[in-house]
Amino acid sequence: MSIPDNDRRLDVFRGARVLITGGLGFIGSTLARRLATLGADVLIVDSLIPEYGGNLFNIAGFEDRVSVNISDIRDIYGLKHLLKGRQYLFNLAGQTSHLDSMAEPVIDLEINCRAQLTLLEACRQVAPDIKIVFASTRQIYGRPAYLPVDERHPLHPVDVNGVNKMAGEAYHILYHEVYGIRACALRLTNTYGPRMRIKDARQTFVGIWVRAVLEGKPFEVWGGDQLRDFTYVDDAVDAFLLAATTDAAAGRVFNVGGEEVVSLRELADALVAANGSGRYVVREFPAERKRIDIGDYYAADSLFRETVQWRARVPLAEGLQRTLAFFRENLERYL
Amino acid sequence: MSIPDNDRRLDVFRGARVLITGGLGFIGSTLARRLATLGADVLIVDSLIPEYGGNLFNIAGFEDRVSVNISDIRDIYGLKHLLKGRQYLFNLAGQTSHLDSMAEPVIDLEINCRAQLTLLEACRQVAPDIKIVFASTRQIYGRPAYLPVDERHPLHPVDVNGVNKMAGEAYHILYHEVYGIRACALRLTNTYGPRMRIKDARQTFVGIWVRAVLEGKPFEVWGGDQLRDFTYVDDAVDAFLLAATTDAAAGRVFNVGGEEVVSLRELADALVAANGSGRYVVREFPAERKRIDIGDYYAADSLFRETVQWRARVPLAEGLQRTLAFFRENLERYL
Repeated sequence: MSIPDNDRRLDVFRGARVLITGGLGFIGSTLARRLATLGADVLIVDSLIPEYGGNLFNIAGFEDRVSVNISDIRDIYGLKHLLKGRQYLFNLAGQTSHLDSMAEPVIDLEINCRAQLTLLEACRQVAPDIKIVFASTRQIYGRPAYLPVDERHPLHPVDVNGVNKMAGEAYHILYHEVYGIRACALRLTNTYGPRMRIKDARQTFVGIWVRAVLEGKPFEVWGGDQLRDFTYVDDAVDAFLLAATTDAAAGRVFNVGGEEVVSLRELADALVAANGSGRYVVREFPAERKRIDIGDYYAADSLFRETVQWRARVPLAEGLQRTLAFFRENLERYL
Repeated sequence: MSIPDNDRRLDVFRGARVLITGGLGFIGSTLARRLATLGADVLIVDSLIPEYGGNLFNIAGFEDRVSVNISDIRDIYGLKHLLKGRQYLFNLAGQTSHLDSMAEPVIDLEINCRAQLTLLEACRQVAPDIKIVFASTRQIYGRPAYLPVDERHPLHPVDVNGVNKMAGEAYHILYHEVYGIRACALRLTNTYGPRMRIKDARQTFVGIWVRAVLEGKPFEVWGGDQLRDFTYVDDAVDAFLLAATTDAAAGRVFNVGGEEVVSLRELADALVAANGSGRYVVREFPAERKRIDIGDYYAADSLFRETVQWRARVPLAEGLQRTLAFFRENLERYL
């Protein structure tokens, strides 16, 4: 259902030397597997910090087709070495938990802000021709002032993570404008699918919902009426690949959304239907999350669709089924 | 010409325990002197890093009326101690040079970004009732999409300094929204006056112009047609004082502009006229600055004027005369 591997635009990846930061994580590993299938020379960098998304099982079956370097993007000397000779950088390493960013704001800054700046400096020094696609987030918009949210919407982060991601994204665009580094940024919305973190809500609340239905336990829906859009991971991977191959994307920021807009309650119902069983309870928003809740969000992503000829292809119901099938098979690897 | 010291709004500063970061710098020291005159208990923190604005001569005559602690805002343990019991924080410490931010991006990040976050964390822990006014900058707007620039204008920094200042400002607003810290931010335009840095252009190009005319040398005007607004330092100090005393300012971001909009060439003519002599040459923009040039800029600051009942009072011609008179007397202290 994703763009077919015989799409000629993907030919550039055959033999291409690719670096993926956060490449053992949810989206990063899916991207790594896809790139390996396309014939790329894939080097993964991942810190395997337990609270983050990295999981060696994410590349099961691909151990001989990708290279893995366990290291932290805060280690700029190591990264500078690893960057040499790389043609593409998919830059997905990051701290993603909003609550962790409030509890440990400086750690979030070191990873999402400082390490991004030093990474770009390293690119400027040792790989100035590299093409970079940076994983940004819709979180930096904060509470939408209008819907759907396009790229001109003001940025008003509601947590430390959002401020740092906003800065991390801005460095990428700046390094394009000042130094000609071919970087672009994708503001991802809720991405879900096989290999996402399900042991807790650090990456996405959808993860703990999936775990609960597979374990036969009720899950909690906070609020329930909030509207959201969702991107299936294969569609997100397509977005990264196509952004990297599109010259006109350089120096630009794009929303990446989904096909459908649903309420959290509708998502819960769709998940239960996809699983064939399950139940949930609707709860009031917990106080500590209420202050960083953003209400409804869904993206206008026509700029991205038109610029790189991408579209979301996997319908929500099918994406949920594929997600459940994966975790039904591999649940213990993700707990 | 600034708001009179008998303005009743300033009564709150009598005996108030005030901390000024960057308090030996241009604006910080002018603020410190004013606050001491108003009867405040003033504690200055300044790193005296030679490339920045701090200069002990800036508090000449006030050595017994203010306390000075030479330390760096990156030293969060020291700062946490110094913050205890303080009621007002005027947060002006920062790296201001755009070229230095490109040459040493991580240092700029440590000061303008990381230290701001740790400072706010310290306030949250030891001084949660403190009122903070943060010195932000119009630089974060980048090249204006429309004029005059109001606070809704998109942020598009053109250098590393701008990205870091944008993040530093955003932390302040976030800590208001999440933790109730009473912080606001003033996006300053070109501020000039006695005690500004004149030995180089790290703080403002106006500084090296002033130095040149006083030394009888020609100064360079790059371009010349760019429009700018200018704030005399006493007006900027009024802006900080009134923002701190206005409850409605908390959590908000304000432009602070000036009364007049002039081209750089008109400013050059005004400076020569104020001095009674001097000459300048108009030059092409140097290549290394061209990429970070922002064209015309002037602020819409009616939001600030209305919210805190402030206005710029010192006309440009008079401000330049006062500036020249100060440096004519004290030139060797600033070289």
